[in-house]
Amino acid sequence: MTDPAPEPDLSSLTIAVLGGTGPQGRGLARRFAAAGLDVVLGSRDAQRAQDAAAGLADAGRVRGASNADAATAGDIVLVVVPWDGHAELLESLRDELAGKVVVDCVNPLGFDKQGPYALRVKEGSATEQAAALLPESRVVGAFHNVSAVLLEDPTVERIETDVLVLGDDRAATDLVQSLADVVPGMRGMYGGRLRNAHQVEALTANLIAINRRYKAHAGVRVTDV
Amino acid sequence: MTDPAPEPDLSSLTIAVLGGTGPQGRGLARRFAAAGLDVVLGSRDAQRAQDAAAGLADAGRVRGASNADAATAGDIVLVVVPWDGHAELLESLRDELAGKVVVDCVNPLGFDKQGPYALRVKEGSATEQAAALLPESRVVGAFHNVSAVLLEDPTVERIETDVLVLGDDRAATDLVQSLADVVPGMRGMYGGRLRNAHQVEALTANLIAINRRYKAHAGVRVTDV
Repeated sequence: MTDPAPEPDLSSLTIAVLGGTGPQGRGLARRFAAAGLDVVLGSRDAQRAQDAAAGLADAGRVRGASNADAATAGDIVLVVVPWDGHAELLESLRDELAGKVVVDCVNPLGFDKQGPYALRVKEGSATEQAAALLPESRVVGAFHNVSAVLLEDPTVERIETDVLVLGDDRAATDLVQSLADVVPGMRGMYGGRLRNAHQVEALTANLIAINRRYKAHAGVRVTDV
Repeated sequence: MTDPAPEPDLSSLTIAVLGGTGPQGRGLARRFAAAGLDVVLGSRDAQRAQDAAAGLADAGRVRGASNADAATAGDIVLVVVPWDGHAELLESLRDELAGKVVVDCVNPLGFDKQGPYALRVKEGSATEQAAALLPESRVVGAFHNVSAVLLEDPTVERIETDVLVLGDDRAATDLVQSLADVVPGMRGMYGGRLRNAHQVEALTANLIAINRRYKAHAGVRVTDV
């Protein structure tokens, strides 16, 4: 890696994970809490979020809340909801998310008998849809290609993968790179502008196909960086 | 990796590289020739192909020919032309390419002041366009994300990267994986069906953005496989 800028200080920030009761959201929350960060899990059902948070007590400080309360509490807000509810949720939280760094982690995928495939998204990608719906937020895409199975497994100590961080706001992408860097083995890397988010989201379909063929929990490393 | 099938024998096959006078084509031809394979470079101008082939004589057996003659000679035919001429070239070689394994390596990208971006392709991807234009060929996508700079540099002994091989014909994808495996450091890996080729082609835009940010020649490794 070339000379990195000094890492932003994350210790005073709260990380919110909307849709945090699914495997990917729980897994990311587990890893951030284990790194000592303050984490709030959000769900449509606050009680469900509290139950999921209680299940992560072994990892660190995680509390549960409604998605709206979690969005209000978070300085960095990860969006880890199913693609089906993506636009609706973000529209409903426009005020809560204004001014914040919003990290879209959603992969618009379909599945049929032949396996996974990338859905066409009118805005280009889930991340660009978020940017269009949240004009007052600082939208970044990241954490698309990380195995939920590995994230959730407390016996896995290191997640050996690079997290491609997409965005047009340099301070926001730097911050999200440093968030990825708190997880042992994980490396945050600038991956291009928002308009190049689609293929990173869609690549998850390839990783699922690879997982099926090779019985793996595939991730991505970028070589020569 | 899970137990691999026995590698197909490539030593009796000829590898043709259409559009082989550009950096990517020359670089791939160099690596295959260095591995002892029989290589034919194709170009619209046979003389130009012969000149480019002569420049690779230090690597191994490479000869130059017109694209049509190279397509006729090749058992495996790589397509490494600019996206602009992709459809036209393939349409003109439909007969020569019938029955053959055709490996599409083309990345439909645009560039503007903000850098690289993926173009929308009506058929979904360059590889799917090739499959549509060549119904009698066995079309596979591969070698999209390999740095031409590294391929062309004779002082670089190993190319540390995975080559995602996309296709619906298992014997053809296995063959192309074994072709990638002849290059030291390179590993051929099944990457999904043809319908998931777009994002692998488009990911090259992200790798170019990464190269610019980190002053690198980025490639991809898949972890846990």
